[in-house]
Amino acid sequence: MPDCDSGHRIAADPMEGTSPAEPPGLETSEQFTPAELRLATRNHGLPLEALEYDLTPAGLHYLLIHYDIPAVDAAAWRLEVGGRVDTELSLTLSDLFALAARTEAVTLECAGNGRAQLSPRPISQPWLLEAVGTAEWTGVPLRTVLEQAGIGGKAVEVSFRGLDRGVEGGEEQAYERSLPLADALRDEVLLAYEMNGESLPPQHGFPLRLVVPGWYGMTSVKWLDRITVLDRPFTGYQQRQSYRVRQRPEDEGEPVSRMLPRSLMIPPGIPDFATRERRIAMGTWRMRGRAWSGFGAIARVEASADGGESWSDAELGPQPSRWAWRAWEWEWDAERPGVHELCCRATDEAGNVQPVTAPWNLGGYANNEVHRVPVVVHEPGDSA
Amino acid sequence: MPDCDSGHRIAADPMEGTSPAEPPGLETSEQFTPAELRLATRNHGLPLEALEYDLTPAGLHYLLIHYDIPAVDAAAWRLEVGGRVDTELSLTLSDLFALAARTEAVTLECAGNGRAQLSPRPISQPWLLEAVGTAEWTGVPLRTVLEQAGIGGKAVEVSFRGLDRGVEGGEEQAYERSLPLADALRDEVLLAYEMNGESLPPQHGFPLRLVVPGWYGMTSVKWLDRITVLDRPFTGYQQRQSYRVRQRPEDEGEPVSRMLPRSLMIPPGIPDFATRERRIAMGTWRMRGRAWSGFGAIARVEASADGGESWSDAELGPQPSRWAWRAWEWEWDAERPGVHELCCRATDEAGNVQPVTAPWNLGGYANNEVHRVPVVVHEPGDSA
Repeated sequence: MPDCDSGHRIAADPMEGTSPAEPPGLETSEQFTPAELRLATRNHGLPLEALEYDLTPAGLHYLLIHYDIPAVDAAAWRLEVGGRVDTELSLTLSDLFALAARTEAVTLECAGNGRAQLSPRPISQPWLLEAVGTAEWTGVPLRTVLEQAGIGGKAVEVSFRGLDRGVEGGEEQAYERSLPLADALRDEVLLAYEMNGESLPPQHGFPLRLVVPGWYGMTSVKWLDRITVLDRPFTGYQQRQSYRVRQRPEDEGEPVSRMLPRSLMIPPGIPDFATRERRIAMGTWRMRGRAWSGFGAIARVEASADGGESWSDAELGPQPSRWAWRAWEWEWDAERPGVHELCCRATDEAGNVQPVTAPWNLGGYANNEVHRVPVVVHEPGDSA
Repeated sequence: MPDCDSGHRIAADPMEGTSPAEPPGLETSEQFTPAELRLATRNHGLPLEALEYDLTPAGLHYLLIHYDIPAVDAAAWRLEVGGRVDTELSLTLSDLFALAARTEAVTLECAGNGRAQLSPRPISQPWLLEAVGTAEWTGVPLRTVLEQAGIGGKAVEVSFRGLDRGVEGGEEQAYERSLPLADALRDEVLLAYEMNGESLPPQHGFPLRLVVPGWYGMTSVKWLDRITVLDRPFTGYQQRQSYRVRQRPEDEGEPVSRMLPRSLMIPPGIPDFATRERRIAMGTWRMRGRAWSGFGAIARVEASADGGESWSDAELGPQPSRWAWRAWEWEWDAERPGVHELCCRATDEAGNVQPVTAPWNLGGYANNEVHRVPVVVHEPGDSA
């Protein structure tokens, strides 16, 4: 994701703006730049009607790919494990298949979800709200492999490098991110080789990726080829520059980590092709959606049909997995023709509530504002 | 796809612009509107590095969905066949599975591919170049089912209705398109229930879709539920308003049909995250790509490294299927540091050549201009 904090002005012409010395570009226009469009046409969002499915069907899960999708030869591929370990490892896929496997249903959301609704906003992937998906990931617990290598006494972090290479903020790099050791050793953190019971698709990290439940997606490094146990904090670009909540470019900032609570609804009725305006007939509607948080299970979802003036509790569905989104439903009597603004907001067990307005930050991260869907209610029989 | 020719101004606010009486909106700005972004974040393109694969992996094939993806109950679903037939049919999926199946590898491209590069452009899905994909589709030849129903003597067209409903140009509608009878009876036209050997994913038309090889994708109606044999040309919105090449809103225009020739290359080297600028080291590069045409097999692909000043023939790969794209390769000696513009263009056996500039039209259809990729060549060892 976001090259938001890079010292790199994003220009419309791909041959311009390569000086790493310029301040980051912020956009206050309600229009979007060619650079944003180039990212939006490459990266894939979840059309919100696909909140219908407990597990997101193949091809509908969100995708944010910083550089290009590598085409990896699985026979030649190895996972190297090194740094502050007792024994360096070089594992084949077969080596990993031979270890005890674990499957987790996990909701992953991009840290930049909601960025395009901020003003001003950084020029990066312009997500509205669709950067999410839920899949069953199967693989080896990361801890199994770390324990096989033997963690050195001074270890504090573990870094994960992907095979995808590119330039960001003027630095050529492979995508690489780290986790504090305690987070890396959690039971649910996986080295995943299957998604929904099939080999990983190329775009989701074939042949192996990290999956860190509860954290924004930037942590779950795809096309993983090297794990390094570190005796000091990792200072690579994606940790030092990107994915930090700051107000000004010179701030050190706080790293983005776990997903803040969010709820989304399936937009009711039918859409206008181009405006996506929703049209529904008067009557009783069973509103449905999903909610999740990286800080705790979902404790409550509330819904509103008057733009957030008044709220009612939605009914929560079962929570089959701590790490996957939870279904909710709410019955709405659409009694009056005209425009109504539907809203939903989630609260997690840690007490975090979705805000009406999320605090702004330079990179446009973690904007978990209340979901709002305006709909036009029409008389029965009044088509369109 | 495109609601380009509708009498419907597209507004930034989803509650505005619903009057069907206003002229179509054209955008001359180099920036993109919120309406365009909403479409771009829903619809999925093929990241061009995925031209690597003969068959596009699940989830990387382009998707253009006018309304919402319907969630269809396959057990309750029926394919109704009616109109000018001897016997109306109501077929279950099992009925279709019992008929002789056929598999075709088919390249499908959106008629609006290239639209975002036009000026002025209609406010619709803002594709750059990524609206393409190739899959193996398995199903029953349409002709088998039409012959089972018995085609009436006065039949001239066959229309295909999907289960996806929405509003376009002020008209509430199910997506519906037709084919001339002679085209509908061609051997390769399928009622497909499998994509790459698996059940159709929801977003590709589960449980059944039409696949019309050689034609732009708007013809291959998804979520098919009704086939109607007609004794006069179909005049529904998607035939009468959309998908016509016209210069002015009041023109009758020509219907969009077969895919014009196009070639695309895999962008070489590594990208900058946000600008997508390509960086490559000096040396010999094996450029690769794909080419296709709905008017005939690909006869020639040419490449250029100087923005189209001079052209060389690329080497063509095998053409395993008439209806799928053909691979090509071209060796380029990147000898001089600096910016170079790589180009490719295809010629089909009918003699159609990709133009340097495609003729403009109001809906932004069939823009098959030469593919251009600027790259920055750097000295070996000069990272980024």
